[in-house]
This record gives sequence, structure tokens and C-alpha cells, in this order.
Amino acid sequence: MAHNFINQIEAGQTIDDIYMVSDPILRSTTRGDLYIAMFLSDRTGQANGRMWQASEAVYNSLPKPGFVHINGKSELYQNNLQIIINRVTPIDASRIELSDFMARTEKNVDEMFKEVKAIVAKITNPSLKALVDEFLADTQLMENFCKAPAAVKMHHNYLGGLLEHTHNMLKVATAILPLYGDVNADMVLAGIFLHDMGKTEELSYEMSLAYTDSGQLIGHISKTFLMINQKADALTAKGNKIDRAIVDVLGHIALSHHGQYEFGSPKLPATAEAFMVNYLDDLDAKMSQVIKAIDNGPKDSNWTPWQNAIQTRLYRKKFDD
Amino acid sequence: MAHNFINQIEAGQTIDDIYMVSDPILRSTTRGDLYIAMFLSDRTGQANGRMWQASEAVYNSLPKPGFVHINGKSELYQNNLQIIINRVTPIDASRIELSDFMARTEKNVDEMFKEVKAIVAKITNPSLKALVDEFLADTQLMENFCKAPAAVKMHHNYLGGLLEHTHNMLKVATAILPLYGDVNADMVLAGIFLHDMGKTEELSYEMSLAYTDSGQLIGHISKTFLMINQKADALTAKGNKIDRAIVDVLGHIALSHHGQYEFGSPKLPATAEAFMVNYLDDLDAKMSQVIKAIDNGPKDSNWTPWQNAIQTRLYRKKFDD
Amino acid sequence: MAHNFINQIEAGQTIDDIYMVSDPILRSTTRGDLYIAMFLSDRTGQANGRMWQASEAVYNSLPKPGFVHINGKSELYQNNLQIIINRVTPIDASRIELSDFMARTEKNVDEMFKEVKAIVAKITNPSLKALVDEFLADTQLMENFCKAPAAVKMHHNYLGGLLEHTHNMLKVATAILPLYGDVNADMVLAGIFLHDMGKTEELSYEMSLAYTDSGQLIGHISKTFLMINQKADALTAKGNKIDRAIVDVLGHIALSHHGQYEFGSPKLPATAEAFMVNYLDDLDAKMSQVIKAIDNGPKDSNWTPWQNAIQTRLYRKKFDD
Amino acid sequence: MAHNFINQIEAGQTIDDIYMVSDPILRSTTRGDLYIAMFLSDRTGQANGRMWQASEAVYNSLPKPGFVHINGKSELYQNNLQIIINRVTPIDASRIELSDFMARTEKNVDEMFKEVKAIVAKITNPSLKALVDEFLADTQLMENFCKAPAAVKMHHNYLGGLLEHTHNMLKVATAILPLYGDVNADMVLAGIFLHDMGKTEELSYEMSLAYTDSGQLIGHISKTFLMINQKADALTAKGNKIDRAIVDVLGHIALSHHGQYEFGSPKLPATAEAFMVNYLDDLDAKMSQVIKAIDNGPKDSNWTPWQNAIQTRLYRKKFDD
Amino acid sequence: MAHNFINQIEAGQTIDDIYMVSDPILRSTTRGDLYIAMFLSDRTGQANGRMWQASEAVYNSLPKPGFVHINGKSELYQNNLQIIINRVTPIDASRIELSDFMARTEKNVDEMFKEVKAIVAKITNPSLKALVDEFLADTQLMENFCKAPAAVKMHHNYLGGLLEHTHNMLKVATAILPLYGDVNADMVLAGIFLHDMGKTEELSYEMSLAYTDSGQLIGHISKTFLMINQKADALTAKGNKIDRAIVDVLGHIALSHHGQYEFGSPKLPATAEAFMVNYLDDLDAKMSQVIKAIDNGPKDSNWTPWQNAIQTRLYRKKFDD
Amino acid sequence: MAHNFINQIEAGQTIDDIYMVSDPILRSTTRGDLYIAMFLSDRTGQANGRMWQASEAVYNSLPKPGFVHINGKSELYQNNLQIIINRVTPIDASRIELSDFMARTEKNVDEMFKEVKAIVAKITNPSLKALVDEFLADTQLMENFCKAPAAVKMHHNYLGGLLEHTHNMLKVATAILPLYGDVNADMVLAGIFLHDMGKTEELSYEMSLAYTDSGQLIGHISKTFLMINQKADALTAKGNKIDRAIVDVLGHIALSHHGQYEFGSPKLPATAEAFMVNYLDDLDAKMSQVIKAIDNGPKDSNWTPWQNAIQTRLYRKKFDD
Repeated sequence: MAHNFINQIEAGQTIDDIYMVSDPILRSTTRGDLYIAMFLSDRTGQANGRMWQASEAVYNSLPKPGFVHINGKSELYQNNLQIIINRVTPIDASRIELSDFMARTEKNVDEMFKEVKAIVAKITNPSLKALVDEFLADTQLMENFCKAPAAVKMHHNYLGGLLEHTHNMLKVATAILPLYGDVNADMVLAGIFLHDMGKTEELSYEMSLAYTDSGQLIGHISKTFLMINQKADALTAKGNKIDRAIVDVLGHIALSHHGQYEFGSPKLPATAEAFMVNYLDDLDAKMSQVIKAIDNGPKDSNWTPWQNAIQTRLYRKKFDD
Repeated sequence: MAHNFINQIEAGQTIDDIYMVSDPILRSTTRGDLYIAMFLSDRTGQANGRMWQASEAVYNSLPKPGFVHINGKSELYQNNLQIIINRVTPIDASRIELSDFMARTEKNVDEMFKEVKAIVAKITNPSLKALVDEFLADTQLMENFCKAPAAVKMHHNYLGGLLEHTHNMLKVATAILPLYGDVNADMVLAGIFLHDMGKTEELSYEMSLAYTDSGQLIGHISKTFLMINQKADALTAKGNKIDRAIVDVLGHIALSHHGQYEFGSPKLPATAEAFMVNYLDDLDAKMSQVIKAIDNGPKDSNWTPWQNAIQTRLYRKKFDD
Repeated sequence: MAHNFINQIEAGQTIDDIYMVSDPILRSTTRGDLYIAMFLSDRTGQANGRMWQASEAVYNSLPKPGFVHINGKSELYQNNLQIIINRVTPIDASRIELSDFMARTEKNVDEMFKEVKAIVAKITNPSLKALVDEFLADTQLMENFCKAPAAVKMHHNYLGGLLEHTHNMLKVATAILPLYGDVNADMVLAGIFLHDMGKTEELSYEMSLAYTDSGQLIGHISKTFLMINQKADALTAKGNKIDRAIVDVLGHIALSHHGQYEFGSPKLPATAEAFMVNYLDDLDAKMSQVIKAIDNGPKDSNWTPWQNAIQTRLYRKKFDD
Repeated sequence: MAHNFINQIEAGQTIDDIYMVSDPILRSTTRGDLYIAMFLSDRTGQANGRMWQASEAVYNSLPKPGFVHINGKSELYQNNLQIIINRVTPIDASRIELSDFMARTEKNVDEMFKEVKAIVAKITNPSLKALVDEFLADTQLMENFCKAPAAVKMHHNYLGGLLEHTHNMLKVATAILPLYGDVNADMVLAGIFLHDMGKTEELSYEMSLAYTDSGQLIGHISKTFLMINQKADALTAKGNKIDRAIVDVLGHIALSHHGQYEFGSPKLPATAEAFMVNYLDDLDAKMSQVIKAIDNGPKDSNWTPWQNAIQTRLYRKKFDD
Repeated sequence: MAHNFINQIEAGQTIDDIYMVSDPILRSTTRGDLYIAMFLSDRTGQANGRMWQASEAVYNSLPKPGFVHINGKSELYQNNLQIIINRVTPIDASRIELSDFMARTEKNVDEMFKEVKAIVAKITNPSLKALVDEFLADTQLMENFCKAPAAVKMHHNYLGGLLEHTHNMLKVATAILPLYGDVNADMVLAGIFLHDMGKTEELSYEMSLAYTDSGQLIGHISKTFLMINQKADALTAKGNKIDRAIVDVLGHIALSHHGQYEFGSPKLPATAEAFMVNYLDDLDAKMSQVIKAIDNGPKDSNWTPWQNAIQTRLYRKKFDD
Repeated sequence: MAHNFINQIEAGQTIDDIYMVSDPILRSTTRGDLYIAMFLSDRTGQANGRMWQASEAVYNSLPKPGFVHINGKSELYQNNLQIIINRVTPIDASRIELSDFMARTEKNVDEMFKEVKAIVAKITNPSLKALVDEFLADTQLMENFCKAPAAVKMHHNYLGGLLEHTHNMLKVATAILPLYGDVNADMVLAGIFLHDMGKTEELSYEMSLAYTDSGQLIGHISKTFLMINQKADALTAKGNKIDRAIVDVLGHIALSHHGQYEFGSPKLPATAEAFMVNYLDDLDAKMSQVIKAIDNGPKDSNWTPWQNAIQTRLYRKKFDD
């Protein structure tokens, strides 16, 4: 039976399905009766859950967080969906379909990764080629690269988002590099491929999207810079001849790709290639954010709600081409 | 005889050629002898000129500014080129080849304009098509569009620079629009074609590049916005059916294309199309500036001088692809 | 019978009057009973309305938004006024007195407009005089000018606010122009008269104050600039001799009157007249805001709540003159 | 014989007059001959002086700085006025007319001060009246108030400038206070009268304009605040009944009158009166600066040079009223 | 019987103790029954209080704010502690132990003040010694100095916090002054002792922490500066010889000790001593804030909640030394 | 014979000594005679050198840059020291005393390094101890650590400056750590020891102070972070058990020690230890800069010239302790 997604539940439905439960709390009403408040969620959204006439035993049985089978009924409360729970049964995580509970890219991961490899295969500079191949040969890292989101909140914040963002930037770069002949294409392509690689370690994305401790302390910019140097060290240790000036210029792209100090880049772009990676990253992230904000949400207004990251509301009226 | 360009003169050469003279001053040495200091220039640069043993009559004969035939000799003074003048003869402006004296795009203007017209010819939305055609039909404006620089100082600051910049942006947009399917291509192409049109009035570019009075008071952003509305008004007056919402969205692209208030945009981008025009404009301007800064100047260091506009020096070492 | 204004209702009153209803929602209590939550408002404020024992039929009958006759009782809930509704009857908008529901200037509109016309009648420069007269002759525009608010939220945010703000600035200017003899009085007076004219199109003010789509995309600054040029074009087309340099200097005042890029001005003031208009606009807007904030709200403290726009709380203790 | 002012000397004149000399230096030419370089100035400007064939004895006789009688000849050197000195004779300061050497307000000091006193005489609040009278009774302070400049560089930077600025602000306030009825006029007038009083101690203005040590360490804002409290303490000690809340509100105007933290105000305006003093101060200072910049300098362009304090060039073309 | 502190009450306890009551409100339930909502607090925190079945008489008897004896029961409501009140009896403030209701330094006030006096006793410069002794001789001020908090919210926001902060800074300065030999130790010690003295007047700390009217209008920076000058004036009036340059340099430390204009300093540090006081103040305040944020709050995460003042979350995992 | 230092040469001296020559240029006078302009310097400063009656052969013989023996005479020209050269002879670098030509710490390097080692020897946490020992065991790095400057321009910009700055910070930390008991002393000491280690690679300091290419592209912050991870990797590879969370917390100190994004830190301090290192670094750097600026330069004013880095002039009057 197909999962009944949160964002499609309307008030008054009978609920008989599995959801992720988080932050359950045991409370008493003003009359002294016990009840449990909790959040129920899947990859499409979150709703309040209320189990009236609850007991401490039921409360203790709940995973915090984890998966539960819910029997109950939906209603609107203060304009938000609320699920009144009659029965709640813990479910083993191994029995659920994780893709129902975490958002995931709508594109084909295998095809995107294949295209990414095809594009970086065109790199001919020996040092860059060796470095890129060393990353591609790290199967655990590549698995994470295909699975990680690009962010917790901002853009491409779903499983496979990092790959989707990198893949799209590589395609944009391939399309416009012929128009900027003085730019070193190898450096741009290697720079894009690696620019956010540190996000595989900055973020955790097992049951939900979050920052790792190490990610919060160090950040993906410095982690990417470190990975590039560690791979270069490994290649050198294996006897490969790696031009350290090229490693510095590539590391500089990683460090400077946010383009401004206040966005966490410790260096500003100082090569044509660093500028191009910075602009294409920003372009792809912003287009993704803007299109998503315009497509989502209630359509009863020509304007989206205020978008804090871009300091404006967005106009969503469409015109024919 | 080919013009002896300023940037190719070395110390010790005999000079016998035409240059633009500006800011001549009659001075006396500490011994009381009169001499004339002036600037001599062509499209490749500027040098100090000194005429020792000068007279007030010679000084009075000089155009201020204008063109002169110079006989003399080059030397280095305080590390800069200086031309010691033996004889100076005013030359009528009609006799000189203006292209020797004002920098000009190295690309073919006719071909670029033809390509621009071919790209915008793909626009199908009736209101946008009518507006773009109305601009194309304004022959005086199109002549200026092909001749104007894109800036006095920053990027594409030479005759034909506005066309070159617009042309390149249109080609970049054509290459990447297929990768951003939710974006209205017609609006992006029309927006790029028109985004800097006001520079034809903001700048003067007859004998040198400068701001007009009107340009300094109003700015090209508001001038472009005004032109779009004036053309729309003219079309409406002629009985064409122009969707005013489309005119507003196109005007919004013109107003917001600098992307930030402090860069003179009175509105921030609020549509996907406005974001794309803003990013492509910035990308093309910055790549042009960065590549030019790296290619120009003394090559005795791996680093350019400090670039104030981008708050860094640029690294100019090249690596093989 | 006089309307019973929201801001004068105390807990425990019987309610039998007309209010504007907005955002009604049908909900069920934890027992399954249906009730309707809604907002009730007039020009003095807004209260929560609750109709217990409601039905879907009643809910469907409500305008969303619109006017209703309410029978019920007031009470305090969580320290806010709430109206418990026994009966609700939709009312046709044509039967209500709109001035009870939208705030309006307390000054006499006709007298203010008469004074405005008297002040600008002193302008003698032919181009400025022709332009100002062209605006005054546009009766539809002048009607809107007398009706529009000066803002949705900040200062003079009520019907007639634009006129009141412009009128007061003109009187301040008249008082101080003799003290600044080198300033062109005609330009200052014309600049003030027109500086916010674009707000007639930026804002909508039929049933409530809001931004129009066009207003949000373009802004009143650019709209004012466009209006000035359109009127100048119309005059020229009719054969009047209009000095375009004067149109530019007047347009510059419109563009620069916010004084800073981050407040949406694409140009900074570059004439003495533009500086004066900028300062008098800011002075009048801030004095209005500050005095209103000090006069309104609970008087149990010497300090107002935090005022975000001016980054401080305001001290409201009064001293005798 | 009238003084031959620096700004009226043209190249080629015989010089036989008194000037202020500063920063004289004894140098040797490349041939080993001694000469003296110095600056010669009066209240209209400054020129380079050169005495060729000088001796150490002459150099030692020069005041550093002070006044000298110069015999010589003017010339242009590198486009600047230079005076070639044949003979230089020290002059006792008591014999010169100081007003020739320091810029001074063009308005009548006695009349302005009389008007200032007439305006503040209208104050009726007892505490404010007592405070203002206490300042007026301090004859040494009032003498300095009439003599001090308002700044070293920015606006009203000449003897009597502080009085001129305060006087003009009081007149502007008198003109517009009737238009802002909710504002405490006594507080505004007292606030304006005192707002810059600390400049009498922040600046020195005997032979040239400069900051005192104490002025640089403390600033006129805190000095004014201190003066107000010292006068209030003195009145209290003499048995006058001074409302300390009024002293705080007046002190607050002094502290906040620069309007922003980055302009050195430790508090932002928090009363309607503080806002008004802040705006009128800024208006009067900026109008004075802008008008002066437009009126001064070469008239061969419609635009002044770049004005750093207001981040623009100024347009100086005049139109008939 | 020991007071039952708010932060140690768990759900389900019987409550029979004295608390501070604030903001009581009489409300009616949806059935029309009256109840009273109020806040109950002591120095460890605050809880909601609810008295169901209340009457207007009970409501009228409550102090607003003040102390009450509460009989009732604790429960959790929406995850927050709530106290259900059966009986409430007003208590005279003289009968309660104030230290139970306002947070207070955990260090020994007498010992800290003794150490402060011992450290400043080492000052030998006559003017500074006289000034410091004049402050120490002001017993009312010293009593307030020992009692005042250092802030309402940020750091050391409890009774005795000002003394604790000053004491710790003096100890840090004593430890590092030998390492910075060119710094005037007397000036640093006197500067630290006095730097926040104005907080005794800026804040009120009788029944709760708040700003005084005078404090909000003037700020502790200017108040400290004023105090220093008033003490110096008093010493001079008594015939002591006080070097006014030293008073300025000490006043400069008070004015500049926040280090930046946007933090309310009207002058930036301009002496080595002012820099040291600024850094040690900032260091001690930040260390106190950071350590408190790390130690407080739920320990179920390695990270604290977002700390707005320092724009980050804090990592709280501990490692062995 | 002792070297005749540049900063002690007065006009009129006979010069017969070795100096570093840089940027020599061959020029011709207005009469056609050749002369050579060059800079002559040692560790105390720089002077202009002029060799009149020079030849191309002499010019070609000069090192660019390098060391030369000069015979000539000093004079003042435009108020700056200038050396008129009669004879110039190239000198082999091996024959000169480098310490005469590059500024060097005035403290004893060996003693400082011994004290540094003694302080970090107190670290007991096994992971931190192992890491610090791994750095200490890298003799080439420690040699550079003892030799490198702390900056090219700002503070401690001389050989041994990095050690001096680190040493002083460690002593300050040792003095105040007992006053901040909740801070992990091991982490602070290890953090200080390593915080600027990357400067050994960011800067070059053989014949003059400059940035390396790699230093400019990457910066010492990221270089230090990389070094810490490389040493940790090396220890792990050798079988040591290193707690990676500790490596992250130490790396975080390196990344955040500039305290603000705009100073090049990609992360803001998020631990008490990171805050302490940030403050002590800033304190030591600023105290060093401020004291140096006050001590240097002409003493004829109570104020130093404007100090751009701290946005003020500094007051240099001294008072007795």
C-alpha cells in the first residue's frame, strides 16, 4: 500500500500508516488526564500528533526519534494539520522505505554520476587528472558524494543534492567555457567537481539532515581544502609527480568559492578560474532556490512570502514564451 | 605609414607622427626659460611631452585638446616614457584616423550585431517580440548601441564594448537556458538585449569616454527603464496590444540587474529571470576585467598590482591544460 | 447609531455592530464540535472572533474578506480582546461607511490640496511651471494624490497621508527657503510636490493598504521618475518648450530623494535642491513616526516599546514649555 | 595699502607684502647651492615659496610659523602658484591684521549673537531658562562661542562659524516649530543653542584651526554633555531648583545629535526633540558644505570634483527661478 | 524552612512557599468561569501560575508586582512548568529574604572589594591616587558599586556582578602588566576600577534588574565620564592639585572602553592604556558569557542553542586536561 | 668598523659603507647626461641614492637587488635623506652581516624558544601532547618558527617576530589561565603555540619580508589548519592514538583565531578556548603595534600620524606612574 504522505492528508481522514515520530512529550491536561504530544513526519512535511488518554507505558514505548505505525484521525487545529492518535506501535527502522521519509533528488543518480565522470574525463593536465582520478578511485567517498545533500536548508537540501548541484554546474561550465577562451578549462572542471566535496563530512544525512560536530567546527570549505591536500600527499607518497603550485591554485578555488569573507571564504577569488567557479556556484544555487520558492507554497498570491536569504518576495506570475 | 603607437615606443627613438594632445601648460624653468608640458596619447596609452625652448606663440597655437604632428625623441624619465619635442604642428581632426586614437573592440561589429539580432529573433511572446522589434527599428539608437562602450573605466571600456558585452551575454544565455527549464527564455533574452541600453545616453564617446550630464544625474539603469516604457507607450499609441505586466517585469530586470542596492539598483531581483540576467551580467563583466588585468601590465611578477574593485591582487601564472 | 470601535470595546460588552471579517477558519474542538475562528476589524484595530457551535453552512456564508453584522459578547483571552459570536450576518459593502474601516487623515483634504496648489503656483521657471501644471491638470491623478496613503506601514499610513506629508513638506520648505538663499526655490517646490507621486501607483488603497504588483516590481521612485518624463514628453509633443536639463535635474531629485542606496535611491543627491528635498522628506517622515509612536500605546511606562526602524525605544515623558 | 591676497595673485606679479610663513626647510640643489622652501599663506589660500641663493642665517631668522614681509615675484610651477623670494623679513605678529590671515564669517557677529539671545529668550520652562541663562552669563565662554569655528575642515570652518551655524539652526527651528505642534519648542531651542558648545574647547583657533589635545581625547559631544551638567550642578549649588530629568533630556540631545553611532554619538535620538535637533544640524551643515563646494573651484565644468564626504560629484549648473 | 526554588520544582509537587508575583491577569474561560493567570518567580527562574475558580476580590488583593504565599501543585503544560494555585496570600516585602529572589554573585563581596582596594592602593601617580581615593571615600557610591549588576542581560547580570567583573579585570591586569612594560600601570588600574562605575546609575536593581530613565537617556559610558570629572572638580575645589591632562586621559579610557563606535563609544582607543582596558573588558565579559552559555541549558546536545551576541552556537564537549 | 645605519645618517656626512641596493634605474637628465637612481637600505630604513655622471656599464654591474659598497655624501632633498654616490662596487652577499640589513627581534631567540618549550611541556592531554611534540620534533619547521616574522607590515614584522609574539602570548595565557578556571588550559596553550605556524610558509624572509605565492593563494590560517591535520595523520599512521575530536577543536582554534569573517577566519570562535586565543592574539598584536607607533617617529607632537589600522591618531604624552 502506498504511503499516505503528510502533505496530502486533509482534515477528517482516517490515518493508518507509518510515520517518523520525534520529540514526544507526556503532559497532563488541566483535569489531570495524561496525554502525549509528538511530531509525526515524512519527507513531505510534519504534523502535530496528539494521543489523548495516554499512559506512561505508551510514552515509554516510543522511539525518540524513530518510526511508528499510527491509527487515528486527522483534523485542523489553529489552521494546522493535527493527527489524533488512537493507537501507536513502534516499527523497526529496517522495515521502512527510507526514501518515503527523506527527500531525494528527482533526477537519476547513476546517470548524473556517469555524466560527471564523462565531463571530468576530459581533463588533460597531468596533476589535475591524477588528483581527480584519486578522488574517483575513493569508492566510499564517491558513494557519499552521490548520497549527500548540498545543504541542510538552503538549496538542493535533499539526498543526492550535492551530486545534482555539482552535475549541473559542470554542464553549465561545459556550455560556456568555449565562450571564455582565456580560462583554463581543466582547472575550472576540477574545481567544480571538488568545490563542495567537504560537504560529505560536514553534513550527516542518515535519518535527517544535520551538521556533524566536525562539520560545525571546521566547515566544508576547509574540509574540501584538506581533502585536496591529503589526496595530493597520497599521490606524492605513491611516487606520482604532482605540481604543488597546481594544488595551491586548486585549493585556492575551494577556499575562495563563496566569493566573500562574510560567507565564510578565508580568501577572495584571485584567478579567472576561481571567479568562474564562484559565479557558477552562486548562479546554480540561487536559480535552484528561486525556482523552488516560486513553485512551492500557496498559489493564491502573485508573490511568495518574504525570502530572507535574498531580501525580497518573489513574483510568481508566469507568461507564455 | 603605420602609426607609431605609444605603447610600442621605446626610449631613444626618433618620433615623427601624429598624437592627441591634451592639457598643455606653459611653464618657466628656474632660470626663467619657457617650456611646454603636455600629454600625448593615442588609443594604446599616454606619455608626457616636454618642449624645451618653447614660446607663448607655440603654446597658443596648440589645440586643447586636439591632434598634433610631433617631431622629437623619446626618453625615460622617472621610469616613465617622455617625449622631447622639437617641433609641434596642429593637425585638422578630419585628417586623422580616429580608430588609432580611441580603443575599439577587436571583434567584428557587424557580425556581432547580426548574431544579436538572430538570437533575439527567437523570442515568440508577442509583447516582448513587439518591444524588441521596436528597439531594433530605431536605427539611430542601434547605431549608438553598436558604437558605445560598456563603461568609462571598468569593463569593455572601448568603442563597441556595449555590443560586445551584450553579445557575449546573449551567447552565454543561449548556452545555459536549456539547463534551467523553468526560466522564461524570452524574458531573459529580451532582458539581456536591453539591460544596458541606457548607456548609449549615459556615456559620451566622441573624442574620449566620459559621462554625459544627463548620465551622471540619472544613470543608465533608470534611462534603460525609461526607454522600455517609452517604446511600450509608442507601441500602444500605434495600436499594438502590449501586456503592461510584461513591461513591468522587463523594467524590473533593468532596474534590478546590478543585484544590490549599493551598486545602484533601486530594486533587488524578484524573478528567476532577473536573477539570471544579474548573474550573467556580473559574470561577463568580471571575467572580462580579470582576464584583462592578468594579461596586461609588467610580467615580472606572478601577481598583478592590487585590484581595488575586487579587493585582491590576481595570480597570473599559467598552467597547461 | 455610531459604530462601536474595536479599540474602545472592553471585556464584558454586548456586541451588536458591523465589522470587517477576514481569514475565517472552520475548526473542530477536541470533542468534535465545530467552531469558526476569524478576525474582526475596523480602522481602529483588530480582534479575534470565535463562534462556538458553528456549522459548515454558516462558515460558507461568510465573505472572505468582507463585512458582517455581529451579535455577541466581548471577553479577554490571554490578555487580548476576543469576541464570542452568537450570530453573524453578511452585509453588502455598499451599505457600510468605508471611513469607519480605513484610517484617514484627520486634516481637511480640500484645504490641504488648495494650499498645495497655492504654494506651487509661485513657481516661475517656465519649464517647471509647465510640468507642475500638467500634473495638476491630470484630474484622475490628482484625485489619487489626495486619496493615497504615504506608506503601508511606516509614516502617514492612512488615506490622505500622501497629501498630508507633501503638504507639510511644502510648508516647511516655504518657511526655510528664505534662510538658504543660494537654493533654487522653484526646483525645491516642484521636487517636493512630485517626489512621491509614484505612490499613487505603487500602493493600492481600496479596501486595505497594500502594494500593487507593479509597485512591488518597480517602486515609487522609478514610477515618479517615469511620470515626470512622460508628462515632459506629452508637453513637448504638444509643442511646449521644455528644457530637458531641467527635467533631468527634477528627475534626479525623484531618484535621489531617499538619500542612500540602501534605501532604494539609485543616485545620491548631487544638487543643493536634491539634498534639501531629501532632508525635509526624512525630517517630516521621522517626526510623524516618532510623535505617533510616543502618543500611541499604553502609557504605563516612560518608554515606548522598541522601535525597530529607529533602533531605540522612545522616551515619552512630557515637560511644560 | 590693501593686502595682496594669495587667491588673487597671478603669475608674473611683483610681490611686496606680508604673509604667514610655515614649514620652512633649508635644502641644497644638486650643485650644492643652498635654497629655502616654505609655504606662504593668508586666509584665502597658500602658495609655495622658494628663495634661491639662501643662507643658513636667513633660514634661522625665519619664524616657524609666523609672519614675514616678502619681496619677490610670482610664477606658475607645475600648474601651481609659486613665489620666488628675493628678500624675506620677519614681522612681529602684533603689527599684522589677523583677519587677513584667518578666514572669518561674512556675517555680522554682534547681530547674530543678539538674534541668538532674542530667540532663546523665548524659553519659558524654568529649568531650561535657568540653564540657558547660566551659559549666557559665562562671558568668557560666550566670547569663545562667538569666535570659534564649527569645524577644522568640514562645514563653517572659519572664525565665527560656530555662531553662524547655531544662529542659522535657531532661525530654521523658529520657522518650522509651529508646523510640528507636538514638539517641545523650549527643549529644541535650548538643545540647538548648546548642541556644539563643546567645540569651544575641542578646537583651537588662535593662529590656525586645529584640535586641542583634550578635544581629540574627549570630543565636543562629551564636552558639551559635561558643560551642561557642570552648569546644572553650579545652579543647584547656588540654590536654584533644576529638574534633573530635564537636564538628562537636554544632555541626551547633546549626546545623540550626530544621529548615528559611527558619527560619534554614544546614544541614538530617543525623543522627538532630539530627532529634530539631529536633522536640523545635519541639514544646515550639509547645505553649507554643498553650496560652498558648488560655488568654489574652477567653473569650466558643470560638475565639481568628487566630494568624498557625500560620495558624489555635485552638479553646478544654475537655472533661473 | 528552606525556599523551594523554581528551577528545582518538578511536575507533581505540592507547593507551599513564597514567590514573587508579576503581571497577574483576570480572565474568563470559554464557559464564563473566572481564573487568574500570573507569573511566579524567584532568583532561579519563572513559572506560569494559574488559579482556576478565582474571583475579582482575590485578583484585587494581589500585589502587582510583589510577594505572595502560594498553596498549590506543579504540573507540566506544553513542556513548561506551571503552578496550579489553590490559595494565594500577599506577603509583606519586609518579611522575605531578598537574596532568594534576585540572583547574586557566588563570590564573597567583602573579600572582592578588599582585594580591589588593595590593588588600586598600588597606584602612585598623585592625580590618579587622589581621584581613586575620592571615589573610595564616597561610601554611598561604593555600596552601590558592590551591589550593582554589570548588565541587565548580557554578562554578570546579577547583584554584585559589577564588582565581580571589575575585580576579575583588575586581577588579570595585575598578572599581565609586567609583560607589557611600556604601559602605564597606574592608568590601567585606575581605568579598570572606574570604567563601568556609571552602571551604578544606569541600572536599577531593587526588585529586579532594569535600566533607569536617566540610564537609558545617557548611558553608563557618559555617566562614568561625568563622575570622573565631577570628582576631579570636587578635588580641585578642595585645593588638591589635579593634572587635567590626566583627567582627560582617564576620561578617554571611560569613553573609549567599548572599542567601537557601534558599541556606543564616542571615541576610539588612542592610548596603549585605553586599548588594554578595552581588551580586558571584552575578554572578561565574553569569557563569562561563553562559559555560562556552555554550562547552562539542556546537556543532550554537544552544541548550545544559537547565541545571537556572538553569532554562533557553542560547542560544549569537554576534554580532559 | 661598525655599520653606519641609515636612520643615523645626517645631511652632509661622508658615506663609505655597504648597503642593500634595490630598483636601480638608468635615466637621462634634461641635458642628456646619464645618471642612476636607486634605493639604498639597511634594517633601519631606506634612502634615495643618486649617481650623477653614471654610465650604462656601471648600471649593468649593479645587483638588482643585492649589496654594494658606496662612496659618497649625504644630503637632504625635499626633506628626505638622499645619498649622492661617487663610486659603487658590488659586494658578494656572503661577505655581509645579514643582521645589519634585516630587522630582528631585540629579545634572545634561544631563551624565548626554551621558555616556549617549557610552557607547552605542561600539556598533559595525550592527544595534544603528542601533537605538540610532533611539531617540536620537526627541526626544519622549528628553525623557521624561530626565524619567521609575524607579519610583513603590521605587528612583529621582523625576523624572530613570530616567536616573540607566540612566546608573549604563552606567557600572558600562563598568567591569566588560573583566573578562568573553566577553560581547558592544555587546549589554550597548544592553540597559541600553533595558531600562526602557517606563517612559516605564508611569508618569505630571506632577503626581505614578502608573501610567497602559496601564502597569497592559501593564507596562514588554512596552512596552519593543514599542518595540524598532516601532523595528526602522521601520528595516526605511526600508530599513535589521536582523538580526532580534539584535532577538530584545535583546528577550529586555528581557523577562528582572527575572530571575524572579514579578517579571514572561515569560522567564528565557538569554544571558550577559541575565544581566549582570539583575544590574546589580538591583545598582543595591538599592544605591540600601538607601543611601536607611539615610540617611533618625530616627537614634536603629542600625537602620532593617523594610524589607518586602528582608525585614530595615538596620544603619546607620558605621565609618571
